[in-house]
Amino acid sequence: MDAGTAYQKLIAGNKETAVLGSCASLLVWDERTYMPKGGSPYRAEQLSFLAGMIHERLTSPHIGDLLATIEGSPFVGDPLSAEAVNVREIRRGYDRQMKLPPDLVKALARVTTLAQGAWVDARAASDFAAFRPHLEEIVKLKLEEAAALQTGETPYDALLDDYEPGETSANLDRVFGPMKTELTALAGAIEGASRKPDMGIVQRQYATDLQQAFGEAAASAIGFDMTKGRLDVTTHPFCSGIGPGDIRLTTRYDEENFAQAFFGTLHEAGHGIYEQGLDAAAFGTPMGDAVSLGIHESQSRMWENMVGRNLSFWTHFLPKLQSTFKGTVDDVSPEAMTFAVNRVERSFIRVEADEVTYNLHIILRYEMEKRLINDKLPVGDIPDAWNETFKEFFDLTPPDDANGCLQDIHWSGGGFGYFPTYSLGNIYAAQFFEQAREELGDLDAMFSTGEFLPLRDWLREKIHRQGMRYRSGDLVKEVTGRGPDAEPLMRHLRGKYGELYGLSF
Amino acid sequence: MDAGTAYQKLIAGNKETAVLGSCASLLVWDERTYMPKGGSPYRAEQLSFLAGMIHERLTSPHIGDLLATIEGSPFVGDPLSAEAVNVREIRRGYDRQMKLPPDLVKALARVTTLAQGAWVDARAASDFAAFRPHLEEIVKLKLEEAAALQTGETPYDALLDDYEPGETSANLDRVFGPMKTELTALAGAIEGASRKPDMGIVQRQYATDLQQAFGEAAASAIGFDMTKGRLDVTTHPFCSGIGPGDIRLTTRYDEENFAQAFFGTLHEAGHGIYEQGLDAAAFGTPMGDAVSLGIHESQSRMWENMVGRNLSFWTHFLPKLQSTFKGTVDDVSPEAMTFAVNRVERSFIRVEADEVTYNLHIILRYEMEKRLINDKLPVGDIPDAWNETFKEFFDLTPPDDANGCLQDIHWSGGGFGYFPTYSLGNIYAAQFFEQAREELGDLDAMFSTGEFLPLRDWLREKIHRQGMRYRSGDLVKEVTGRGPDAEPLMRHLRGKYGELYGLSF
Repeated sequence: MDAGTAYQKLIAGNKETAVLGSCASLLVWDERTYMPKGGSPYRAEQLSFLAGMIHERLTSPHIGDLLATIEGSPFVGDPLSAEAVNVREIRRGYDRQMKLPPDLVKALARVTTLAQGAWVDARAASDFAAFRPHLEEIVKLKLEEAAALQTGETPYDALLDDYEPGETSANLDRVFGPMKTELTALAGAIEGASRKPDMGIVQRQYATDLQQAFGEAAASAIGFDMTKGRLDVTTHPFCSGIGPGDIRLTTRYDEENFAQAFFGTLHEAGHGIYEQGLDAAAFGTPMGDAVSLGIHESQSRMWENMVGRNLSFWTHFLPKLQSTFKGTVDDVSPEAMTFAVNRVERSFIRVEADEVTYNLHIILRYEMEKRLINDKLPVGDIPDAWNETFKEFFDLTPPDDANGCLQDIHWSGGGFGYFPTYSLGNIYAAQFFEQAREELGDLDAMFSTGEFLPLRDWLREKIHRQGMRYRSGDLVKEVTGRGPDAEPLMRHLRGKYGELYGLSF
Repeated sequence: MDAGTAYQKLIAGNKETAVLGSCASLLVWDERTYMPKGGSPYRAEQLSFLAGMIHERLTSPHIGDLLATIEGSPFVGDPLSAEAVNVREIRRGYDRQMKLPPDLVKALARVTTLAQGAWVDARAASDFAAFRPHLEEIVKLKLEEAAALQTGETPYDALLDDYEPGETSANLDRVFGPMKTELTALAGAIEGASRKPDMGIVQRQYATDLQQAFGEAAASAIGFDMTKGRLDVTTHPFCSGIGPGDIRLTTRYDEENFAQAFFGTLHEAGHGIYEQGLDAAAFGTPMGDAVSLGIHESQSRMWENMVGRNLSFWTHFLPKLQSTFKGTVDDVSPEAMTFAVNRVERSFIRVEADEVTYNLHIILRYEMEKRLINDKLPVGDIPDAWNETFKEFFDLTPPDDANGCLQDIHWSGGGFGYFPTYSLGNIYAAQFFEQAREELGDLDAMFSTGEFLPLRDWLREKIHRQGMRYRSGDLVKEVTGRGPDAEPLMRHLRGKYGELYGLSF
C-alpha cells in the first residue's frame, strides 16, 4: 500500500472512531442534563461499552501499520502540513493508547460514571465519606494509568500530559510559585483598599427564565451560533461538542445572583465559539480538533473575563439588561456594574471566584493532586489536607466539604491534571488578548457598540482554524511572537484592579 | 461448543448489540427533542454508522453458527421456556436481517434521518412538494426492502410483518372491512344525536407549565415511575425506552386545549408503563422485549381511552384539575368533563381524533399504504389520492396537506405497515380490559378513588413480564381465553357512546 492510500485509510478510520466518540459525548451530556436518576446504571454500561469499543479501534495494530507506511515517506512533506500534523497527533494518541490495558479503560469508564452520580449526592449532603470509596477506586486506577503510560518524570506528569501535551510539573512549579506570591500580594492590597463595589446590584431578584433568555442573547451577540448549539442547566457547567453544527453549553441559575449563570454562560460560550470555529470538514481528525485544554480555556476565560467583565461590555449590555429585567437595575451605571462583577474577595468556591484569587484556587488543587498522585496521600486524608492548605492559601477554613474538597466534579471523572490547564488558559488568554488589541485596534470602542465579531473572527483565523497544527506553547509563540509568559496576565490584573480599586502598583 | 455455552454467547452478544441500539435510541430521542437544527447532518452520519454497525453484528455468521448449535439440542427444552423463546426470536430476527443488504440498511438510516427534518419543515409550510423527493427515495428503498425480505404474499405484507409478526393484509382486510362499516354507522348515529358535549371546557386557557405538572402527576398516579423516566416536548409525541430505568415520554402542548397534551401524555405513559414493566434483567433479549407494536399500542390506548376517558377517572382527577388550574374549571362536573373528552366528530387530524373515528383514520392510511407499496401509486399522486379517499371516508376535504397527507411522521421514518398496529392495539386493548374487569372486579370503583396500581400490576404480570414469550395473537388468547376479535372493541364503543350520547344500538 502506498503512503497516500494508507493516509486515506487512517483518516477514514479516525473519523469513524470520532462518530463513536460523539455518541459518547451525547450520552454524557444527557447524563448531566436530562437523564432520569434511574438511568444511571445502564448509562454506565453504555459508556463502558463505547469506551471499550473506541479503545479497541484506537489500539488496532492496523493503525500502527498505516502509520509506519506513512511516516518517513515523502507523502507527509512539510511538518506543518495538514497531513503531517494529522499523522503526528494520531501517532501520539496511538502510542498513548497502546500503553493502556483495555480492562483499565473499561474500568475507568464504569467507575467514573457511577462516581459522578455519587458525587452529586455526596456534594448535596456534604458527605465525603459517601464519595470516598469511589474516589479511592479512581485514584487507584489513575495510578495504574500513570504507571502504564510512563511519560514524564512523575506519575502526575503522565496524567498532566494528557490534557496539556508536553507540560510538566517542573515547569508549572516554576510558573505557579512566583504567581502565587504575586497574586497573594495583589489580593491583599485589594482587600486593604477603601473603595468597594456595591454587590447588591447582582444579588437582586433575577427570574431564571429571563436570565436564560439574556444569557442566550449575549452568547449570540459575542458570536456563538445558537442554531448550531444549545444552552441547558446542569450542576457543574460544561461545554460539549457533540459534532459539527451541534455544540452544547450548560449553566446553572441562582434567582438571587445574576452573575453566576451569566458569566458561566459567557465562559462556556467561549469554549463553544472555539468548537464552532474548528474546521467542520476536518472533524474527527487532529486538524479539526482543539489543541489542548489550556488553549481551550484561554478562549473561555478571555470571553468571560477580558471581554465580559469589562466596562465597554457593560456600556453596551447594561441597557439590554435593564430592558430585560424591567425595573430591577434602572439605578445602575455601567461603572457600578463592572465594579460589582469584578469584586475581589477570598472565598470557598472556585467557580465563583474572581479573576485574582481564581488562580490561587487552581494552585491549591495542583498541590493537592501532586500529593495524591505522587506522594500517595491517602484519599481519606483529603478533607483535612484540603482544609489545612486552604487555611494557608486563603486564611479561611471551609465550613464543610461541599464548600471544600467536594465542590468540583473533576476528580469524580478521573480528571487529575486537568485543573492546571485553567491557569494556563488565563496566562495564554492575556497573551492573546494583548496581541488582539495590537492588531485590531481599539477593542473597547468596538465592545461598547456591540461589535464582538472582529475579535471572534481574529481568534477563529489565528487559533480555531489551526486545529492541532501547533502545540500550545508553539501556538502562543506563533500568534503573539513570544512563548508562554505569565507577565501579560499579571499586567492585566494589576492594571484592571488598580483602576477599579484605586490602587497603584 | 456445547449448546449451553453457545446460548450464553448468543445472549451476551445480543445484549451488546442492544447497548448500541440504546445509544441510537438516545440519539433519536435527542434529535426530536433538544438537538439544534445545525446538528442534523452529523446526526444522520451518527445514526447511519450505528445502524451499519448493528446490522453487521446482527448478520454475523457467528450468530448463525451459535443458533445452529443450540437449535434442536435438548438444551432448549419447553418451547415456552425463556431459552426457547430467546432462540426462536433471535432466529427470526437473524433470518430477517440476513436478507437485508448492508448498503440498504445504511441508506435507509441516512435518508430517513434527513427526511424527518424535511418533514418537520414541510408540514409547517404545508409544502408536500418539498417533502416529495425524500418520500420517493424512502418508498424506493422500502420496496427494495420488501423485495429482499420476500415474506408474505405481497410487498406490503413483508413490511407489515416487521411491526406485527405474522400479521397479513388478507387478515386485516377481513377485520377492517366490517369495522369500517360499523364505525361509519356508529359515527353517523352519534352525529345525529341531540345531546352534545360542551367543548368549551377543554378549550379554556391552560398554562403550559401547569399542564406539564398535571400530566406528570397523572402519569405517576397511573403507575409510570418518573424517577425512571421523563416527559419532554416534541412535534410528534412518542415514547422511547433508552434502557432499563430510563423510559422517556414526549408530548406537545396547546395553551388553549387541555385535552391534546393530557391524553397524549396518558397514551405515551401507557407505552412507558409497558416498557417499565419489562424484566430489566432480560433487557437486550427477546424475553425482556415487547411483543409487537400492536400489543404496545394496546397498553397505550387502554390507559388513554379506557381508563383516562372514563367517568371514574374524572371523578378522581377533576378536583386535582380544579386545584391545579385555579378558577379555570370550578363550574365543571366529572360528567361534563368526561363527555367533553369523548366528543365524536369527523376531523382531519388522526392524533386528535376520537375513539370512534380514530380507526377510520387508520383504515384510510392502511389503504393508502397498500396502494403505495403494492399498487405502485406514484408518490406525487399522494395528496390527491389522500384527499379523495378522505372525502369518501369522512365526507370532508382537508384544507391543505398539513391537515392531510403530511400530518404524520411515520412515512418520513420509513414506517410503512406501522399504522395498522394502532387499530390492532385498540382491538387487543378492549379484549384485555374486559378480562381485567372480570378478574379484578369493579375497576370503576377503584379508579374513582385513585387506585390504578391493581390494573397496572395485573398488566405487568399478564403481559409485560412475559416479554416475547407469545406472539400477539397467542398472548391475547393466553390472557383472555379467546383469540383476537374486534367485537369487544365494538361492544365497548357502542356501550360507552350510547350512554354518553343517549343512544341505543
